[in-house]
Amino acid sequence: MPASIGTASALRTGYSTGELTTVEVADQVLAGLAGRAGDAVWISTVPAEHLRARAAELHRRRTELAALPLYGVPFAVKDNIDFAGLPTTAGCPEFAYLPERTAPVVSRLLDAGAMLVGKTNLDQFATGLTGARSPYGAVESVFGGGLVAGGSSSGSAVAVAAGLVSFALGTDTAGSGRVPAAYNGIVGLKPTRGLLSVAGVVPACRSLDCVSIFTRTVDDAATVFQVAAAVHPDDPWSRALPVERTVGRAPSTLRLGVPRTEDLDFFGDLGQRDRFAAGQERLAGLVDATEPVGLQPLFEAGDLLYQGPWVAERLADLDDFLRRRPDAVLPVTRKVLEGGREYTAADVFRARHRLQELRAWAERLWRRIDVLVVPTIGTTFTLAEIEEDPIGRNTVLGRYTQFANLLDLAAVTVPNGFTESGRPASLTLVGPAFGDTTLVRLAAALTGEHVGPAGAAPTPPGGDLVPGGDLVPGGDLVPDGDLVPDGDPDGDGRVLLAVVG
Amino acid sequence: MPASIGTASALRTGYSTGELTTVEVADQVLAGLAGRAGDAVWISTVPAEHLRARAAELHRRRTELAALPLYGVPFAVKDNIDFAGLPTTAGCPEFAYLPERTAPVVSRLLDAGAMLVGKTNLDQFATGLTGARSPYGAVESVFGGGLVAGGSSSGSAVAVAAGLVSFALGTDTAGSGRVPAAYNGIVGLKPTRGLLSVAGVVPACRSLDCVSIFTRTVDDAATVFQVAAAVHPDDPWSRALPVERTVGRAPSTLRLGVPRTEDLDFFGDLGQRDRFAAGQERLAGLVDATEPVGLQPLFEAGDLLYQGPWVAERLADLDDFLRRRPDAVLPVTRKVLEGGREYTAADVFRARHRLQELRAWAERLWRRIDVLVVPTIGTTFTLAEIEEDPIGRNTVLGRYTQFANLLDLAAVTVPNGFTESGRPASLTLVGPAFGDTTLVRLAAALTGEHVGPAGAAPTPPGGDLVPGGDLVPGGDLVPDGDLVPDGDPDGDGRVLLAVVG
Repeated sequence: MPASIGTASALRTGYSTGELTTVEVADQVLAGLAGRAGDAVWISTVPAEHLRARAAELHRRRTELAALPLYGVPFAVKDNIDFAGLPTTAGCPEFAYLPERTAPVVSRLLDAGAMLVGKTNLDQFATGLTGARSPYGAVESVFGGGLVAGGSSSGSAVAVAAGLVSFALGTDTAGSGRVPAAYNGIVGLKPTRGLLSVAGVVPACRSLDCVSIFTRTVDDAATVFQVAAAVHPDDPWSRALPVERTVGRAPSTLRLGVPRTEDLDFFGDLGQRDRFAAGQERLAGLVDATEPVGLQPLFEAGDLLYQGPWVAERLADLDDFLRRRPDAVLPVTRKVLEGGREYTAADVFRARHRLQELRAWAERLWRRIDVLVVPTIGTTFTLAEIEEDPIGRNTVLGRYTQFANLLDLAAVTVPNGFTESGRPASLTLVGPAFGDTTLVRLAAALTGEHVGPAGAAPTPPGGDLVPGGDLVPGGDLVPDGDLVPDGDPDGDGRVLLAVVG
Repeated sequence: MPASIGTASALRTGYSTGELTTVEVADQVLAGLAGRAGDAVWISTVPAEHLRARAAELHRRRTELAALPLYGVPFAVKDNIDFAGLPTTAGCPEFAYLPERTAPVVSRLLDAGAMLVGKTNLDQFATGLTGARSPYGAVESVFGGGLVAGGSSSGSAVAVAAGLVSFALGTDTAGSGRVPAAYNGIVGLKPTRGLLSVAGVVPACRSLDCVSIFTRTVDDAATVFQVAAAVHPDDPWSRALPVERTVGRAPSTLRLGVPRTEDLDFFGDLGQRDRFAAGQERLAGLVDATEPVGLQPLFEAGDLLYQGPWVAERLADLDDFLRRRPDAVLPVTRKVLEGGREYTAADVFRARHRLQELRAWAERLWRRIDVLVVPTIGTTFTLAEIEEDPIGRNTVLGRYTQFANLLDLAAVTVPNGFTESGRPASLTLVGPAFGDTTLVRLAAALTGEHVGPAGAAPTPPGGDLVPGGDLVPGGDLVPDGDLVPDGDPDGDGRVLLAVVG
């Protein structure tokens, strides 16, 4: 069984000590891909000889290690982001095109020394939160047991969780960078809208789309974020992180918003309820103060996305294709997209006006608190459960995520142990636009870095974590209910340095 | 013939020396109203005994003069802005309601000592730029001769230009705070969207609406702006002027954008062309540098408003009324509004996406220049000319104004003399959001303060400037083609002080 690819941080250590070479890592990556051949994680991969050539090139340039923050780090890209050399499908073969240019956000990673492995599966047109809406196959969670991978960035999340790559790019409009992180026990950073350029990304809702980052550690997420974030002149949605926000605030100074109990719905999943309570309690111990927050305005904002006129934003770019090739679009996706035709122009403006009121509510909220914690998802579903009610259960999955981009928020999703029935739990830290680095610092404090299932290789490729076909053993990662292994091998403050440096 | 009411600045001098009392000024105001009885400037006025009572109250409080920046200054409010005590009609009697609360922006003026005189006529629902679209009558320019007043804030502009009040509030979505200023030879300040609260204002396009200020001097505009601007908690569109922007930049440090000749269209009006060239040349002498700017992206953005899906934003609030009472709406207004029904939700998002590209263009523009000068209107029309083609000629009037709020710009309109055929000329300084105080400083430098027709009382009420029924004599205000009378009676820097203080 191929070894899991190390985190960006671990690879860097290996490269700098000479224990590892990029050529060796490329071979490990190729072995990992071979081990998972036939599953639905990838839509296309870089030819083996190209990956080896890239590794060899980097090996020749190994004296540049200090100048290349992602030197020799293998990564995956969701297949709605352009890379010149592989087709972009957006999860729809009939829509596919061969891009002439690589998306600037990918170019930045390559320029920093990263090695692209391939393009990952997704819910078609990034529309969905299940990972089950793709003609390339439904993606299963790294934890197996029939659990979906979550979507729409399903393949990217599994590629990271399974150790096939160190990190991956996803996109996040309604929660596609957070829900799959939750389903696969990894970190999902959904940066403030505009900090990572969406140039060269197939639009879902142009005014809301974000490029997101999947990693196994918060530290890695901070490193990738730092490399990837940049204003791009071709991207009118692009925004700069204000200089004064490049250093996050110390967790001990923060006021944490915690949901009012009556606003939390786990859809009957008491295991998720208990895990969230435990995670929230642990967070409360890290911050200066906590304050209860009503979530109804967030839910109302979120409903505008799929249950309101924003669904028509998806038609702005796709309607022509949908009319020409209705057969090329999955029935569930078509149904969702065609719902956008029911809204008038005046409906959009009415919803925009209501959204402005909700944004004003959110602005007032950020005067009371600095960070809000929410469950990432209220409960988890198997593929069979999704198939019973693909649209209704998709909506359930978006409950705690789909408001974020409408309200111009940043979010970091972190693993939160497992329920007693062995399902992965996760929580999401939410903050105002440009609060990314503060969220990252709090997330790092929460996870103590390097949290994953058992704190090691997250899962063997192609199989379940435990041989019995069940999910991982119930309960917490460590016996005392704490998520963090004792000690901190990489030392404190590295996230801060990574974000600042 | 009643005397023209002084500027806010002149009244203040009079009150502080004891030469004037508020009671005397109220009587002057009432005499002025009586002198114009029967014209279309006002929709409703405060009862004479109320105005006298207000004046008497202020007279008793005359020791508070220093604390009340608008002590005893009479003003008018466009009749789409609420004042508890008078109906709000929005130019449609069947739509009228009696507001329970005064709009916060009006309350701030009253709290600063101003005296409300009445509510002014407007193009119905603030939809139009002509001043001819009102069931309360078409408003004629203060210069007479059949010239329209411009709209939609027609009555407010004439009330100020005719000296009936010292200042007036208008609103500005497509240019309604600038076009009537141009037609009446006065100053029109269209602040950055959100700085003056739109709470208690009948919406036209909620996401674009601004409250605007008409005065006879730039100094007065700065004073009223300073009092009126405030974040209001009930107004989700409300924004604060950043502290570092409360002082404008010195004109001599500015880079001025001047339109490329091929982008300027005066619709055959060579007099306006010549006046604009002269005004631009004078401006160029005040700034550090000039740079040619192509205007096509501005025009494209502007076209989204009436020739694109933004017209549907007007339906967001009005569609119910329009369907219930189509007979209550003027045919031309109904035709414009109903055009909004032709757009789909996806059309709105497509236009929004294009607008984002144009906003990005504008952001790049503000790295090259600090202020852009444009004609306020390319040409002027008589009422008869408007009636020939009410929609087409309205579009002509919006050419240089309707892009501003879509692109989140601030603007100040200032008089620019008269054409040889006696028509008023005007130019508008445009800057990025929150550039208001810089625009005001440049406008003050341009006008040297206190510029109006002949630098004195702008017009006798109810008549033309010159007895022959013609407009004012052709040519410039002063023989050398300069707009500014020699000397500066109020001293330099007062605008800066007013804005800062």
